[in-house]
Amino acid sequence: MYKLVLLRHGESQWNKENRFTGWTDVDLTEKGQQEAREGGKALKEAGFEFDIAFVSVLKRALRTLWLCLEEMDQLWIPWEKSWRLNERHYGGLQGLNKSETAAQHGEEQVLIWRRSYDVPPPPLEKTDERYPGKLRVYQDIPESELPLTESLKDTVARFLPMWHDTIAPTIKTGKNVIIAAHGNSLRALVKYLEDMSEEEILKLNIPTGMPLVYELDENLKPTNKYYLGDEDKVKAAMDAVANQGKSK
Amino acid sequence: MYKLVLLRHGESQWNKENRFTGWTDVDLTEKGQQEAREGGKALKEAGFEFDIAFVSVLKRALRTLWLCLEEMDQLWIPWEKSWRLNERHYGGLQGLNKSETAAQHGEEQVLIWRRSYDVPPPPLEKTDERYPGKLRVYQDIPESELPLTESLKDTVARFLPMWHDTIAPTIKTGKNVIIAAHGNSLRALVKYLEDMSEEEILKLNIPTGMPLVYELDENLKPTNKYYLGDEDKVKAAMDAVANQGKSK
Repeated sequence: MYKLVLLRHGESQWNKENRFTGWTDVDLTEKGQQEAREGGKALKEAGFEFDIAFVSVLKRALRTLWLCLEEMDQLWIPWEKSWRLNERHYGGLQGLNKSETAAQHGEEQVLIWRRSYDVPPPPLEKTDERYPGKLRVYQDIPESELPLTESLKDTVARFLPMWHDTIAPTIKTGKNVIIAAHGNSLRALVKYLEDMSEEEILKLNIPTGMPLVYELDENLKPTNKYYLGDEDKVKAAMDAVANQGKSK
Repeated sequence: MYKLVLLRHGESQWNKENRFTGWTDVDLTEKGQQEAREGGKALKEAGFEFDIAFVSVLKRALRTLWLCLEEMDQLWIPWEKSWRLNERHYGGLQGLNKSETAAQHGEEQVLIWRRSYDVPPPPLEKTDERYPGKLRVYQDIPESELPLTESLKDTVARFLPMWHDTIAPTIKTGKNVIIAAHGNSLRALVKYLEDMSEEEILKLNIPTGMPLVYELDENLKPTNKYYLGDEDKVKAAMDAVANQGKSK
């Protein structure tokens, strides 16, 4: 009935340095750019033609979308950019090296923060330079909606209004949609689409730069899902993501 | 009261080859990319902060905008893409080397086609592969609005509805607007803004990659205009554009 494509951004500089990123606006590495181009090539080979893209306001997702659509020669499609597709906000952990955090707080606590459904990391103060309210990109968002930190549950809660109000109605008009976003904002969507439990979604790791295609029925319930790209690469990428939380 | 920034795309591959481009979707050269980056640097140094961009659906304008905003770290602003900001459609001349066209039709005829206000070049047939109706990017545009060729007058006529319906109201809300487009779609805007005669607009050559800033009063009438960038470069760029119509 409908197809929906999800694309998680490729490797960022802070992914590479193993630092908590969240809403910090770091760019893709050269490897991350290559992942995005490969995603675009896979979509092009599979014959995808998009009518509209939804994307976060973070550079690593914007650049991933740009490079993907450049490969497909579809840079002209409209993009709707929204903070609701941003990565989970990691609060006071943002900017910290993950290995250091693990060494300080213990690997167990880090895993709880990263992998529990409703336990947020320590919140930012509003005086903190990292507080989103200090940035022009978030100036039109009511202060009550701006996060100081987020659990995955919080990320789901701020993403879903965009799904219900904007993305789902767009898909139902028959438009072919691509969403370029982040590990946890895409988890939020996958949890909702597949009606996953909290435990199930925590185990799901979406590979970077690899288009995830959902086939949806008339009620937008999934009838099929698959990744585009080399099968070994899909597995290797998923294993790599699962190992990120371990201290080194 | 208000500021509006116009940005003409940098050198494209066909600019370099001296071919009529029009709606052909050619990309920027390396030089053109550098021009776009320099435009972004000049805007950043001058402290511009944009809220929204309007841009054509052609790759050379899209890439110019991307590179400009990348320099400014403002990739997150919304873009509204529209065919109404496309370059003038050059009909049957598209793809032809300008020197060859001049040699075949005479330099005088080429100058008439390029520089007259209301004489369009030979039209395309609808069976022609170059006809916009054959491309997905223009699929939602009524056939009656799709050009087979355009005079500058035609370009003005299809651009102005976008100004009146979308861009002008946006400026009046107080948003800072940048428009990334083409030599003739920007001429269309400048003619309207400055209430220029047909003769005057034909003499105006907007340099590539150099931000043109308009200061506008509450009725969007210009009170001042200036280019951002090195003064000698502005003059050199304008002279170069003026010489393009001459056969070599």
